[in-house]
Amino acid sequence: MVVGVLIFDGLAALDAIGPYEVLSRLPGADMRFLATESGPKRTETGHLSLVADYSLADVQAPEIVVVPGGFGTRRLLDDEELLSWIRSAHETSQWTTSVCTGSLLLGAAGILQGLRATSHWAALERLREFGAEPASERVVEEGKVMTAAGVSSGIDMALRLAARIAGEEVAKAIQLGIEYDPQPPFDSGSPAKAPPHLVELVRSVAEQREAEAAEKPLSP
Amino acid sequence: MVVGVLIFDGLAALDAIGPYEVLSRLPGADMRFLATESGPKRTETGHLSLVADYSLADVQAPEIVVVPGGFGTRRLLDDEELLSWIRSAHETSQWTTSVCTGSLLLGAAGILQGLRATSHWAALERLREFGAEPASERVVEEGKVMTAAGVSSGIDMALRLAARIAGEEVAKAIQLGIEYDPQPPFDSGSPAKAPPHLVELVRSVAEQREAEAAEKPLSP
Repeated sequence: MVVGVLIFDGLAALDAIGPYEVLSRLPGADMRFLATESGPKRTETGHLSLVADYSLADVQAPEIVVVPGGFGTRRLLDDEELLSWIRSAHETSQWTTSVCTGSLLLGAAGILQGLRATSHWAALERLREFGAEPASERVVEEGKVMTAAGVSSGIDMALRLAARIAGEEVAKAIQLGIEYDPQPPFDSGSPAKAPPHLVELVRSVAEQREAEAAEKPLSP
Repeated sequence: MVVGVLIFDGLAALDAIGPYEVLSRLPGADMRFLATESGPKRTETGHLSLVADYSLADVQAPEIVVVPGGFGTRRLLDDEELLSWIRSAHETSQWTTSVCTGSLLLGAAGILQGLRATSHWAALERLREFGAEPASERVVEEGKVMTAAGVSSGIDMALRLAARIAGEEVAKAIQLGIEYDPQPPFDSGSPAKAPPHLVELVRSVAEQREAEAAEKPLSP
């Protein structure tokens, strides 16, 4: 079972690594990190490279598609080569999934038209641009399309997906293997729970970084 | 503030990326992925490379040390060059931390002698070999040494660390930024909660992989 994880400069690492750490433990999983061009891709903070072993052309018809987010997605919303790969992979996939603003790429590829979908809370309303109905939920499943909320939510999504693919026993064993028994020291992980002034602070930082990301050229 | 994240072939990606995603959002954080030799390091599943931009010699006296785990740690328990870097970094660090079986490396470096510490639940008892007292807790703080349990626990640890370094407001804003509002679909993330037959299954798989990891040569 080929799991194609699409990466690009400006991705948020945890968006990709959460699902990777879960799905790579599925029996027979063949995880393939791919990008328009293979090679190292820099995360949105600029502090780390993940390597795409494969190019888009190398991975045709993966059974599972995972599209992470990050501010780098904003430069890709009109990248026809990338969007065309997503569209084509979705035609034959068993599951097409996204984490965080990866859903904007699914949307730009035309996959979310008329579907409920989620994204990072600060980007959620942007899903309307692509004909989707924003849903303020951690994981949204619509047929074979599964979208997850911001960054860390890809772990929850991938466990749900693991259960759909291989059954609950396997998913529970994976949860135990990665000791996913979360105990956050605070309860401010969603805009509904965090103090309003922090919601405004994080939203304004996100808007600023979004504006910067849109300005940056595609190549360094 | 330099945060040195030590990586190596055979690491568990989420062990490193959980703390990275949190700590990279601290104001002034200068995250540096380092390894004995710089370059791509393969994760324990063999499915992905993370790139170490720096060698051990490049990163002297980081303020924060993060040591992830993975089956690759077992081959490093007598790697004097690596252990010596950990020991030396610990002398001047503000915080020395580990995730999962990264604590075995802290132990082998002599840092956990007489301290309570944690690790992946399936490796916890091994901490005794290094004079540490195993603690079945998600995050254990002993002075400036913070150890975390298996794989996903590095997110919880890093949020606690972020609060110690920059205050609770900042840590809460980071939690909101990565939308860390966990909603696992099952409650089997610790051996105390998972069905006993799954605990045995995961333990036996871990023992088998540990035996394989110990046999593999250091270089490919």
